[in-house]
Amino acid sequence: MAARQDSDPRPVSRLAGGIEAGGTKFICLVAKGPEHIVAQTRIPTTTPAETLERTIAFFRPFVEAGQLADLGIACFGPLDLNPASPTYGHIITTPKPHWDHTDVLGTLQRALGVRTVITMDVSGAALGEWTWGAGQGCNPLLYLTVGTGIGGGVILNGKPFVGLVPLEMGHIRLPRDPSRDPFPGHCPFHRDCFEGLASGPALQARFGQNGESLPEDHPFWQVEADYIAHALVNYILTLAPEKIVLGGGVMRRAHLFPLIRHKVKTLLNGYLHHPAFLTDVDRYIVPPTLGDLSGSLGAIALAQSAATTA
Amino acid sequence: MAARQDSDPRPVSRLAGGIEAGGTKFICLVAKGPEHIVAQTRIPTTTPAETLERTIAFFRPFVEAGQLADLGIACFGPLDLNPASPTYGHIITTPKPHWDHTDVLGTLQRALGVRTVITMDVSGAALGEWTWGAGQGCNPLLYLTVGTGIGGGVILNGKPFVGLVPLEMGHIRLPRDPSRDPFPGHCPFHRDCFEGLASGPALQARFGQNGESLPEDHPFWQVEADYIAHALVNYILTLAPEKIVLGGGVMRRAHLFPLIRHKVKTLLNGYLHHPAFLTDVDRYIVPPTLGDLSGSLGAIALAQSAATTA
Repeated sequence: MAARQDSDPRPVSRLAGGIEAGGTKFICLVAKGPEHIVAQTRIPTTTPAETLERTIAFFRPFVEAGQLADLGIACFGPLDLNPASPTYGHIITTPKPHWDHTDVLGTLQRALGVRTVITMDVSGAALGEWTWGAGQGCNPLLYLTVGTGIGGGVILNGKPFVGLVPLEMGHIRLPRDPSRDPFPGHCPFHRDCFEGLASGPALQARFGQNGESLPEDHPFWQVEADYIAHALVNYILTLAPEKIVLGGGVMRRAHLFPLIRHKVKTLLNGYLHHPAFLTDVDRYIVPPTLGDLSGSLGAIALAQSAATTA
Repeated sequence: MAARQDSDPRPVSRLAGGIEAGGTKFICLVAKGPEHIVAQTRIPTTTPAETLERTIAFFRPFVEAGQLADLGIACFGPLDLNPASPTYGHIITTPKPHWDHTDVLGTLQRALGVRTVITMDVSGAALGEWTWGAGQGCNPLLYLTVGTGIGGGVILNGKPFVGLVPLEMGHIRLPRDPSRDPFPGHCPFHRDCFEGLASGPALQARFGQNGESLPEDHPFWQVEADYIAHALVNYILTLAPEKIVLGGGVMRRAHLFPLIRHKVKTLLNGYLHHPAFLTDVDRYIVPPTLGDLSGSLGAIALAQSAATTA
């Protein structure tokens, strides 16, 4: 293998397995990167036993053929990500039926016998976009998903950032004006936190239809953009990311981007002296470029990094 | 010098100069650490020429005697902290008269001829508390000052964290209820951001007296604690610090601590499964232990780190 530049922070390109383990489906890849995908499949998320068995069956032939020594998992959660914990790599508690306390990491590792690493779903998407997508090499990079839930993944010095606990950025509190938006909020823990007000299910609860079908000229879109912009401003002031990638189902409504960018500039009001917040905001707040493979490709990148540093 | 453990992240103890350059006064130390302070002085902040001249005069004898080869500065700002910028180490713009565009780093470095490093005032305080104080070794550590302004410093892997721009955590937006607190806010950029609502000058503007004299049973303290708690919850969800140290003039009112801790627990509502947010919140949100020397001692630690890695 050719010598790599020390300054190139990307993982070595080698074949790996990657799983975006989501609440709706598991996206499984065998790949070196987005330009070199050997196999892929989508498995509906049913019971843990059935879903993990089908996942194992997909990867097993590649392992048996000696093609695959590393597996990365970007998993829904909350997850136990403390390597010193006896339940490391388990899903802790989740509203998703049957999945409480599932040992995702251990089950796959034991069945396939490969080096296996795990991170949060949104950290996987962040890592995918950082490695090959819209946030390539940004330090730190913030990837925010606005969809069924709202969550943020931060890539710092090329790795998913975890503090004392995994980040739960979707649950921050924001200013709100009940006379403009009387919806009381939808989060079972915090009611009117960001996720409780602006996620896909919050739109569904308000209008009986989700963000995909609400017409583009509906006045609520400005309210939604304002919530997202307030959250981004708080993240910018607290984390100062080099770029923000906005993904997830709600963000597929592309007309939101100019509304959000404009509001972020208005809220910051020239306080931060950097072109990103003044003239270059169009290049600062961007959609992902890996489509619905951000997470599974991020899982590939995670597996490649683990292989490089092992 | 004895060999150090690689696992000890603290800088080597050696004599250094440290300055907390504040808007009211410059605190200058020659020290190895809090237990070994050779000299100290306080210089009122007047014009840049006069203040920096007196600062130089304090340190010069130690430099001439060969006792001092390193100087750290924890400076008010906003500062240019981009090492690639031609105005690195300058104060950019400040409401403080005369100090716009002052080259603090360059002026001291040229006059004293020692290795000189600079960081934001609040990052200095964070580093002081991380090295010798209430947040020793925490990763990440958040130090928040609530005083004339509100600002946060984050120590990550033993170093002040700077993203695309220095953090400006005091300017996040929070939920507010004008029927409970009709004060419109005091921030010239954002009006009712956290600093605009909860800093010392915001208290002064509301009551004609600052936080030091407002009686402990005044109903506003619960409002103040609620603002601070909302901000802490947002920082916890976004940065997941291992500990939070709350300093600054307003936080000298010790009765605020239990109010803030209780509200943080209430707002998180059991969502984060970690003792810090459940049973151990008294040890999670704490006052500083270095008194008003957090910043100047942090400047000493910064100088020592620079000397170690140079």
